[in-house]
Amino acid sequence: MYRVDNIILGDNLLQQAAVFAPFIPNNKILIVTDTNVAPLFLPTLQATLASYRVDTMILSMQESNKNWEAVSRILQQLVDGSYDRFSTLISLGGGVIGDLVGFAASIYMRGMNFIQIPTTLLAQVDAAVGGKTACNFNGIKNLIGTFYMPTAVISDLYTLRSLPNREYQAGLAEVVKYGMACDADFFQWLDLHKAAIKMRDNKALNYLIARCCEIKLATVREDMHDNQRRQVLNFGHTFAHAIEAATDFSWYLHGEAVALGMLLATKLAVKMGLLLPQILDRLYNLLVYLGLPTYIQAGTVTTEVLYSYMAKDKKNCAGTLNLILPCALGQVKIVKQLNAEFLEGLLQSYA
Amino acid sequence: MYRVDNIILGDNLLQQAAVFAPFIPNNKILIVTDTNVAPLFLPTLQATLASYRVDTMILSMQESNKNWEAVSRILQQLVDGSYDRFSTLISLGGGVIGDLVGFAASIYMRGMNFIQIPTTLLAQVDAAVGGKTACNFNGIKNLIGTFYMPTAVISDLYTLRSLPNREYQAGLAEVVKYGMACDADFFQWLDLHKAAIKMRDNKALNYLIARCCEIKLATVREDMHDNQRRQVLNFGHTFAHAIEAATDFSWYLHGEAVALGMLLATKLAVKMGLLLPQILDRLYNLLVYLGLPTYIQAGTVTTEVLYSYMAKDKKNCAGTLNLILPCALGQVKIVKQLNAEFLEGLLQSYA
Repeated sequence: MYRVDNIILGDNLLQQAAVFAPFIPNNKILIVTDTNVAPLFLPTLQATLASYRVDTMILSMQESNKNWEAVSRILQQLVDGSYDRFSTLISLGGGVIGDLVGFAASIYMRGMNFIQIPTTLLAQVDAAVGGKTACNFNGIKNLIGTFYMPTAVISDLYTLRSLPNREYQAGLAEVVKYGMACDADFFQWLDLHKAAIKMRDNKALNYLIARCCEIKLATVREDMHDNQRRQVLNFGHTFAHAIEAATDFSWYLHGEAVALGMLLATKLAVKMGLLLPQILDRLYNLLVYLGLPTYIQAGTVTTEVLYSYMAKDKKNCAGTLNLILPCALGQVKIVKQLNAEFLEGLLQSYA
Repeated sequence: MYRVDNIILGDNLLQQAAVFAPFIPNNKILIVTDTNVAPLFLPTLQATLASYRVDTMILSMQESNKNWEAVSRILQQLVDGSYDRFSTLISLGGGVIGDLVGFAASIYMRGMNFIQIPTTLLAQVDAAVGGKTACNFNGIKNLIGTFYMPTAVISDLYTLRSLPNREYQAGLAEVVKYGMACDADFFQWLDLHKAAIKMRDNKALNYLIARCCEIKLATVREDMHDNQRRQVLNFGHTFAHAIEAATDFSWYLHGEAVALGMLLATKLAVKMGLLLPQILDRLYNLLVYLGLPTYIQAGTVTTEVLYSYMAKDKKNCAGTLNLILPCALGQVKIVKQLNAEFLEGLLQSYA
């Protein structure tokens, strides 16, 4: 068992009541999960928490119903069960369920006790780390949300074994992001251990997840509210969000879009003379090896649509587009007021 | 002009663009107000902010529509106007509008720039101080909300001049609360200056509001998230919330219910031998002088209903009722696990 701040990482944690006990102040627990995850891990978790009064709620969860209606159902169940601020809400699932349940936890009575159990690689290395919660609003992804730290994040390596390959690979895109944006040594390590990573070797995974959490938490500590430093973690994400939105959140997994977004941002950096082309090659080769997409499927996205979505990014200020671009391996910078035509040219050459 | 932390207090502030300028990072502003306040102060504020791009939104606001639908309308207008996190949301009005707009500001893109302009005494001394936002949920008052500090709270004494007498008096209940719960000297000062206060003397008001803000902010600093110390500010409020809920939020103003709640809590403290009866007399006499109600109107509330609402209070933990009771002038303590029958007896003797 390994601990980074409020994150507890290890194998078979869901079976150990002692892991949970320090984070449960009173007898009442509501576990919220989704229809995919429930059959896999909910019975184990319920058995582990059998000494508490546990309610459960199983949502049919995709990005498209990560909305207020779902939040409202969680809140109503908390009201109906007379939950108070010291009762515990547990999210069991991937990034979507964690974001949504975290948002509900953060606004119920202005914040109740919250434990997050991420069951995908992407959630364990990114979504569950750093206290961002989110909910879509009238079709706009993550438009509303809060900054709210869970009391504990319990990441059980066991849950990654049953993860479909495509989802596992998508999670690796965020892992590569930490190397590219924040830590050249970690990028080298990934490159060296890519075979073990691909095979989901437990020892490699343990180090990889812990290191991602450390990098993210160090960055978040410097800038909890996402005003400056934290934005480096958005490397690849302005493009990624636009690609996801332009394809109705149905074509690419988030991590796949991040892989494409990192390649676009890196290609742009090379074009602008910010970065050596060799770095782009290294990134490209690693992503290919890990099974991630490296080009946008023809016919799925037009340049105009992509650009119009990018213009709505939360990092923008007063109408000018800001992008996070790499300037060396393990280093990025915020480039402001990008030229629209230049960007459109890049997108066209890329699709 | 007087400044306490993020609160700026003075006369005719709404006419001074220089007061606002430091808190407006980009050109876009949305002012949200209600149908009562708009005709009184919106034209002045719009003229003062004429150098920015200002949108306005006027809600028909009472406690009963302080709900998600109203929040959702604000969010949609922010989306439609392409507002970003550095755009400014301004609330202009009493506690209800401040709570609601603050909640919207805190969740839009995980928090946008927010300026609060409280236009009632109650909002200037309490609701706008300390960063609590709130929204009702399926009829339950303030069930959802966040802790979110406005960039600035601008309290213009001028706005108090047109306040109806009943609302002004209701605000004074929260003022008395600070004396009773936190500061014996301030209680003495209120008693000495009660004639000037009743006449809305500007000098007395200036001191009174500043002192309330100082007391509240000092308490909030010790305990932003309302776990322990901040609960002293809830003196009288467990009873008050129950009285308001039991009368459908239509019979008493919040401050009036707080006056009744303080008297109930103080009477309980005397009965339990925690407090000298002379303190109860002093509180009673001051509230009477200031025009506040001192008994619950016969036929409006039954003991059972009141008690059932108290059992839902946010301060409760694991089903036991916690109350804030006075133990000396300017001092309260949290009394846990109160006996239900004892409480019901008190309520019965009081109605």
